[in-house]
Amino acid sequence: NAVLPIEYHEQRIMEDVTGAQLIAEALKAQKVEYMFGIVGVPVIEVAMAAQASGIKYVGMHNEQAACYAASAVGYLTGRPVIVIGGSSDQKQETTGAFQEFPQVEACRLYSKFSARPSSLDMISSVVEKVYMFDQFFPIYFVREVPCCPPPPVSMADHMAITEALAVLKGAKRPLLIIGKGAAHGRAEGALRELVEGCGLPFLPTPMGKGVLPDDHPNCVAAARSRALLQSDVVVLLGARLNWILHFGLPPRFDPHVKVIQVDLCAEEMGNNVQPAAALLGDVNAIVKQLLEYVHKDGWKYPADTEWWTTLKEKMAANATMTKALALQSTTPMNYYQVFHHISQLLPHDCVIVSEGANTMDIGRTMLNNYLPRHRQGMPPHTQVKGQIHQVSCTFSLYKLPVVIIVVNNNGIYSGVDSETWEMMGKMGDLTTVAPPVTLLPEARYDEVMNAFGGRGFLVRTEEELRSALQLSLSDWERPSLLNVLIDPSSDRKQQEFPWLTRSNL
Amino acid sequence: NAVLPIEYHEQRIMEDVTGAQLIAEALKAQKVEYMFGIVGVPVIEVAMAAQASGIKYVGMHNEQAACYAASAVGYLTGRPVIVIGGSSDQKQETTGAFQEFPQVEACRLYSKFSARPSSLDMISSVVEKVYMFDQFFPIYFVREVPCCPPPPVSMADHMAITEALAVLKGAKRPLLIIGKGAAHGRAEGALRELVEGCGLPFLPTPMGKGVLPDDHPNCVAAARSRALLQSDVVVLLGARLNWILHFGLPPRFDPHVKVIQVDLCAEEMGNNVQPAAALLGDVNAIVKQLLEYVHKDGWKYPADTEWWTTLKEKMAANATMTKALALQSTTPMNYYQVFHHISQLLPHDCVIVSEGANTMDIGRTMLNNYLPRHRQGMPPHTQVKGQIHQVSCTFSLYKLPVVIIVVNNNGIYSGVDSETWEMMGKMGDLTTVAPPVTLLPEARYDEVMNAFGGRGFLVRTEEELRSALQLSLSDWERPSLLNVLIDPSSDRKQQEFPWLTRSNL
Amino acid sequence: NAVLPIEYHEQRIMEDVTGAQLIAEALKAQKVEYMFGIVGVPVIEVAMAAQASGIKYVGMHNEQAACYAASAVGYLTGRPVIVIGGSSDQKQETTGAFQEFPQVEACRLYSKFSARPSSLDMISSVVEKVYMFDQFFPIYFVREVPCCPPPPVSMADHMAITEALAVLKGAKRPLLIIGKGAAHGRAEGALRELVEGCGLPFLPTPMGKGVLPDDHPNCVAAARSRALLQSDVVVLLGARLNWILHFGLPPRFDPHVKVIQVDLCAEEMGNNVQPAAALLGDVNAIVKQLLEYVHKDGWKYPADTEWWTTLKEKMAANATMTKALALQSTTPMNYYQVFHHISQLLPHDCVIVSEGANTMDIGRTMLNNYLPRHRQGMPPHTQVKGQIHQVSCTFSLYKLPVVIIVVNNNGIYSGVDSETWEMMGKMGDLTTVAPPVTLLPEARYDEVMNAFGGRGFLVRTEEELRSALQLSLSDWERPSLLNVLIDPSSDRKQQEFPWLTRSNL
Amino acid sequence: NAVLPIEYHEQRIMEDVTGAQLIAEALKAQKVEYMFGIVGVPVIEVAMAAQASGIKYVGMHNEQAACYAASAVGYLTGRPVIVIGGSSDQKQETTGAFQEFPQVEACRLYSKFSARPSSLDMISSVVEKVYMFDQFFPIYFVREVPCCPPPPVSMADHMAITEALAVLKGAKRPLLIIGKGAAHGRAEGALRELVEGCGLPFLPTPMGKGVLPDDHPNCVAAARSRALLQSDVVVLLGARLNWILHFGLPPRFDPHVKVIQVDLCAEEMGNNVQPAAALLGDVNAIVKQLLEYVHKDGWKYPADTEWWTTLKEKMAANATMTKALALQSTTPMNYYQVFHHISQLLPHDCVIVSEGANTMDIGRTMLNNYLPRHRQGMPPHTQVKGQIHQVSCTFSLYKLPVVIIVVNNNGIYSGVDSETWEMMGKMGDLTTVAPPVTLLPEARYDEVMNAFGGRGFLVRTEEELRSALQLSLSDWERPSLLNVLIDPSSDRKQQEFPWLTRSNL
Repeated sequence: NAVLPIEYHEQRIMEDVTGAQLIAEALKAQKVEYMFGIVGVPVIEVAMAAQASGIKYVGMHNEQAACYAASAVGYLTGRPVIVIGGSSDQKQETTGAFQEFPQVEACRLYSKFSARPSSLDMISSVVEKVYMFDQFFPIYFVREVPCCPPPPVSMADHMAITEALAVLKGAKRPLLIIGKGAAHGRAEGALRELVEGCGLPFLPTPMGKGVLPDDHPNCVAAARSRALLQSDVVVLLGARLNWILHFGLPPRFDPHVKVIQVDLCAEEMGNNVQPAAALLGDVNAIVKQLLEYVHKDGWKYPADTEWWTTLKEKMAANATMTKALALQSTTPMNYYQVFHHISQLLPHDCVIVSEGANTMDIGRTMLNNYLPRHRQGMPPHTQVKGQIHQVSCTFSLYKLPVVIIVVNNNGIYSGVDSETWEMMGKMGDLTTVAPPVTLLPEARYDEVMNAFGGRGFLVRTEEELRSALQLSLSDWERPSLLNVLIDPSSDRKQQEFPWLTRSNL
Repeated sequence: NAVLPIEYHEQRIMEDVTGAQLIAEALKAQKVEYMFGIVGVPVIEVAMAAQASGIKYVGMHNEQAACYAASAVGYLTGRPVIVIGGSSDQKQETTGAFQEFPQVEACRLYSKFSARPSSLDMISSVVEKVYMFDQFFPIYFVREVPCCPPPPVSMADHMAITEALAVLKGAKRPLLIIGKGAAHGRAEGALRELVEGCGLPFLPTPMGKGVLPDDHPNCVAAARSRALLQSDVVVLLGARLNWILHFGLPPRFDPHVKVIQVDLCAEEMGNNVQPAAALLGDVNAIVKQLLEYVHKDGWKYPADTEWWTTLKEKMAANATMTKALALQSTTPMNYYQVFHHISQLLPHDCVIVSEGANTMDIGRTMLNNYLPRHRQGMPPHTQVKGQIHQVSCTFSLYKLPVVIIVVNNNGIYSGVDSETWEMMGKMGDLTTVAPPVTLLPEARYDEVMNAFGGRGFLVRTEEELRSALQLSLSDWERPSLLNVLIDPSSDRKQQEFPWLTRSNL
Repeated sequence: NAVLPIEYHEQRIMEDVTGAQLIAEALKAQKVEYMFGIVGVPVIEVAMAAQASGIKYVGMHNEQAACYAASAVGYLTGRPVIVIGGSSDQKQETTGAFQEFPQVEACRLYSKFSARPSSLDMISSVVEKVYMFDQFFPIYFVREVPCCPPPPVSMADHMAITEALAVLKGAKRPLLIIGKGAAHGRAEGALRELVEGCGLPFLPTPMGKGVLPDDHPNCVAAARSRALLQSDVVVLLGARLNWILHFGLPPRFDPHVKVIQVDLCAEEMGNNVQPAAALLGDVNAIVKQLLEYVHKDGWKYPADTEWWTTLKEKMAANATMTKALALQSTTPMNYYQVFHHISQLLPHDCVIVSEGANTMDIGRTMLNNYLPRHRQGMPPHTQVKGQIHQVSCTFSLYKLPVVIIVVNNNGIYSGVDSETWEMMGKMGDLTTVAPPVTLLPEARYDEVMNAFGGRGFLVRTEEELRSALQLSLSDWERPSLLNVLIDPSSDRKQQEFPWLTRSNL
Repeated sequence: NAVLPIEYHEQRIMEDVTGAQLIAEALKAQKVEYMFGIVGVPVIEVAMAAQASGIKYVGMHNEQAACYAASAVGYLTGRPVIVIGGSSDQKQETTGAFQEFPQVEACRLYSKFSARPSSLDMISSVVEKVYMFDQFFPIYFVREVPCCPPPPVSMADHMAITEALAVLKGAKRPLLIIGKGAAHGRAEGALRELVEGCGLPFLPTPMGKGVLPDDHPNCVAAARSRALLQSDVVVLLGARLNWILHFGLPPRFDPHVKVIQVDLCAEEMGNNVQPAAALLGDVNAIVKQLLEYVHKDGWKYPADTEWWTTLKEKMAANATMTKALALQSTTPMNYYQVFHHISQLLPHDCVIVSEGANTMDIGRTMLNNYLPRHRQGMPPHTQVKGQIHQVSCTFSLYKLPVVIIVVNNNGIYSGVDSETWEMMGKMGDLTTVAPPVTLLPEARYDEVMNAFGGRGFLVRTEEELRSALQLSLSDWERPSLLNVLIDPSSDRKQQEFPWLTRSNL
């Protein structure tokens, strides 16, 4: 809840408090632990006051990166992200002041709540006047800001639960889809009980991975397209029928699929597909309500259905195909080889962050998550390769326990090898002849990490990959970066439906 | 839910369908019954198509008034208001086209959802092409739009209910505040059971009036200020601690008051005052949850407390003061006389709409509501007197069963009598000497009604008032207007706290 | 220039000055003469302070109407319109305060400049503190705000003038189009010299009417469509190629037409059609520049060209057709009869305001303007009939010298007669059977004017029209309204191109 | 002019043209030479089509950097920057599509013009239909888009010129301020004539540097504060009285200073200070108008005034102080030493780009510009150090002739040395103990450049600096980076008024 509840509490002397301190204290009172930022003239004092209040300050290299970092913390802790920006003095508005801009207005489209705190302003303007007139200004009431309580939880009403269960029990080919909302709602316990108790197949969305482990026997991620297409009853558990789930429409879904929608947000109900049952409320609370009913009659979806057979066959077939690619043992490596070895070495409790179309798509199927909220995405189309400098620098500065693995294909989507690149250079101005997707071949991202005191590895072979990764994972004193050179022409295996294809509405 | 759920359904021939018809059919499919508007070049066809689809069309005189009318229907039916606006052709954007404007963007701040329907656009552009190329264009799939289901209902979780009841049972001076959310949620049955079963005093907000009848013995509206100020536990039932309830803060509330907040909207929780218990969900469902628990132990707030004594004494004192004003029998009349007679004659099942500071304030206390959702407000600061022409004209045109009572004090807040006005006219240019609050003395609003075929009455005495009102109420064939001339200096009785006073934050 | 220049000037005692007074004084210092508004709780003091400062205050009935009135004054005086709105206290933002809304942001799309005056805020907050702390608060520097000078004038550069004249001199079928910018720039003297000196035909846009008199021998308004279509060189003088001029494109313009664009605004250059010459600057200054060059060589467009013959023949033909309609002498009258008599009786120095599709279209051709800036439009699609109450009331209140002529066809675009209306009433619910364009037949708008002390006339015949209009024009002590009942099926004569037709891009 | 003028021209076959090609061709027709971007799913085709049309494509690492690069080109060429963004399909709006967002609306506050090209949309949707229906779709009219002409130029009117000269000739202490507008208007020739012909002192703003050479004898930049404070007549030549010029107000300006304002933009006139004369129009054209008048009477400001004496004394004193710092010859170096050697070695025709508070402030005074438009700023508060990766990578990829000099003080504003840093690390978590302004000491930015095939130098001494810079300047085959380690506590010499100080309004 971004609106801070405010209460009159007690009085305090104002003379020795600055606006920056008041901001810092207000944040601390809200139990904020981390601040990410870039200091400069109008905000440097805020960062210092935050540190003085016991908030950890992490200096970043641009505002976008700071927001990504903060939203990662927000996802892990379930708390909203607050963006604090400097601005010109209110009294200088319309005068062409330094950084004059309607910040509150500009944030409207991007945020749930956007305001300029007039109460802090008032306080700081009073303080300012005290100094200005050099007279005694005894006391001033400041509103103490207690920490806001956790957001209230709501449940679905009984009728809707009954309807939903009637639909589910009538399903021939049921499918649970576990989304980010389930992770956010910490529904892992209840969901495990539902999945295992009722014997239902489930599919995680990218951000729902790990709520139940990816290697759970009921997880049908390896038959994703088939499961979506043929299911007759889909239960959306904090997942949404947007582009990630192909809008819930043909040709990716059965046109007659029945949807049971479990969501916190009333406005989401019926988007794109009208649900057969709409369960409004907290995912965890609602799964518990479902369990309560199911426990009464002990309903269970049979294990010996055609649906399970179909799904298992498809999963096996996909596994075989993936394995073949992963075991090719060529040099330069392909994506599947790389992910195969990474998946074998990664500890189960690590947080996995991925970006880049191929890396994300292949990684999603080959890198298992075992724990909830241990997977992070990044906003689409941020080029990770372009961010290596700043993450290397920040991670090294604060000695953060991070391993960066660059699956380096010399390009975006795909690149070229060094000889081709050299040849291109001879053909003319590279701005004219180099395909927009190419990057410098064999760029030494590992050296960038070294430049800031981290540990960089140049990796060309499977052996080098295993050894570098093991070394990195055994020493968390500083960050590591593996620059894994792969075949620039390596690609995903052929898909029935490519992931990012525009839907055929 | 403003986002229309969409489903592939069946095919139809497109040649003979226009965009206006598709809009009309889509609205009809959503069970829209009324359209209010002003026709003009880009929207005239939409109104005609709507009528052809069986939607009732009411022509208005300006857009603002059309929105008020639609939102009144929305309040009575519990359905969102949809605003449809014309615009220039998309292909003429940036060319200086007729009525070119970014309408979707301009509506962002004022609406829950704002969009330009690209799918209807597509359809109409295909139709257009058919005619353009004069060739057979056989069939086209149109998405049938079934009516969206009622919004899903959610309940509070059990823990929050328990907490709320613990707080309520510990109250010495409890107060239920019944707000618009209770009316919207149709919680009247459950609330009556709670109020009567537990013996609790209640106070309606302006839009909560009538959920329980204003003459219910537990209604403490006549001691409003006292009740707010001294209560130690307030239960907000779809009411919000905004300016209407003085932000829930001193000096209008006890600084230590505990708040139990029942609301549909998580973002509302803790605004201005942090609640002791937050019950998120549908007001009706949550009151039923509370009742379930209360029924178990039969808890009841005692009838013989000091709190009830205080409230009843204050109510009696206020009633005496009001009665004295109402029975003055002077001519010209004062506000209290006028409302006294109106309240005696109005049928219990009429819908009361009021506007104007004094009229609203005094009317709120003197005109009882007996049924839920039978009171309407109007947006603040629309001058009703300035709207008389358009409502007279519209009501007469459609022969609507409405009685308009103008409590005419010759001004806004207060006016002057005819002699004073004439004297002012002699003092100089009226734009310079007439106070901004004055209007033309004894303006003949009744004649305006006559001009459009309705029935106007000029009323100066109590007898004329009773007779004109009885006549109006006995014949609903056409609208009536009572132009009740009162003492221009008539005012409210002295208030402890004036209603609109800025809070003393 | 909406940004007020600010200067340190002298000191003054703050104790006895309110924010409203500071606003009033700031407006007065800017030589503001009129304020239009609706008073209510947050702005009543501003209106009173304005009157106290000598500003004339005109009370209106809604905000829209107040803005129209102010923009009319703005057009006549060449000064920008300032909209002042109340708002909740800054310190109550985000609390659900009365009329809390981001006003500055909401005005962004509608205004050139939008701000919340932080300096006045500061002042008033200091004043407020003085009272709050009840102590002596000696002196405070207030910025005196001198009246801003008239906006600076710029001229075209010499090269562009030369180019423009080369194009113009090469024209076979030249046409000057005189727009609102010429009226705004007070270019009437220079333009008369150009038109008469060079013997050029001209066409006014609706808001350019009267810059040169409509009965000027070189005015070709009566051959508008022909002139636009066949001209080979068009000189835009403060006129723009938007929908009013059909975007300057075929089929309404020659595809090879050369455009000489004279405009104050660089961003307007080349919109829709790339100009052969672009003259950036003040219309008056640039016409003078053109004259300077033309005077040197005495260039003149010949009077005996085929172009003049074409235009004059077309004008004569159109005049004959109009005259035939105007002299029909039937009862009920048609539009042309009504405008024929009005045009004969109107004094040459009256300001003409018109609205309503037919009224505007026919009035534009039949009612001549003889003086610059004596014609006003109204924003499209405001239904004048719906505004009669408020204008009657306001005009009567302030005894303004206005004659309102309602050309009453019982509808919008077209209505029905009383018998048809009655028949419809019997066919069922009027919201279902009455066409959206119909209004109450023979509504007595004249009685509405009477209700507020003005003078209303019901007019059915040519004689009644002449007599009522002569009476109205001979007594300016109070406003008059002529309710002229015409044949509900009266329409415009057939047009080659209907005015409002969507362009055929 | 961002609005592309459009003309019907000739027909072409549509079958083989894509939307991306149409965009590319439209850009090429507008003589666009460079495109900067990041490719990804929805825009990759646009980059490829642009290259195919002969536009140079430079791949960047984030959108912000791409915009900076484009705006640098815009500044050098005098043409507006166009931002092209991908978006979800219009028909997928409101469905939760990939990258669904109201882009046009979001850009409103940041751009002069913002639109979604409906005409290209139309074209591409027709193409799409061709494939969809698999039938012959013969021809389609496409509007050819000729290149828009250069923006028209306007001049001041004669009266304003006369007024301005009267004020200037009356000046005791005149000062010309040459701003970005003069650079943009290419006014260098005329300005040199004015400065030298009339013997006037001038001061460039940061972006006005080089319009006249910084070593011109009339340049008083070395006495900036004095010149601003004591001048009685300031001529603003495309410069604005915003924060850069301290709002033109005390204590940085004489409260009685008279301002002659020369600006392209009417809305800028009178901002903060009301001008004594306002010359609206193109800076170059207006300076020529001034010259025309001055030539007539041969007016000249005397060379032997007290004003020139004051300015020259102050300049000499400042030069002495700067020289003392520059010649300290310590290791580690200070800012002044570094800039001293750089200024000696830089060729006069290089483009200088600077960022970082100290670097910018000291560089502005110590690095001379000799040619117009050879200085570039960067938007405030972008941390250059954080961008080194991406510029190194981009510059290396395209082998651009750039020398990057990092004046490395281990921090933002100021850092710490390696020992202090190590000590801090032992004191606890660096997020808590490291000041927000510190960066990793002695970070190897030079190694980052090496990692991408450029040439990095680690520089600690004056000798190393000279040698590395000479090497870099003698070989333009690849970019170089000098990582110049300076004393982390090095700072600017004491200022009378610090540059970024908030003005004392």
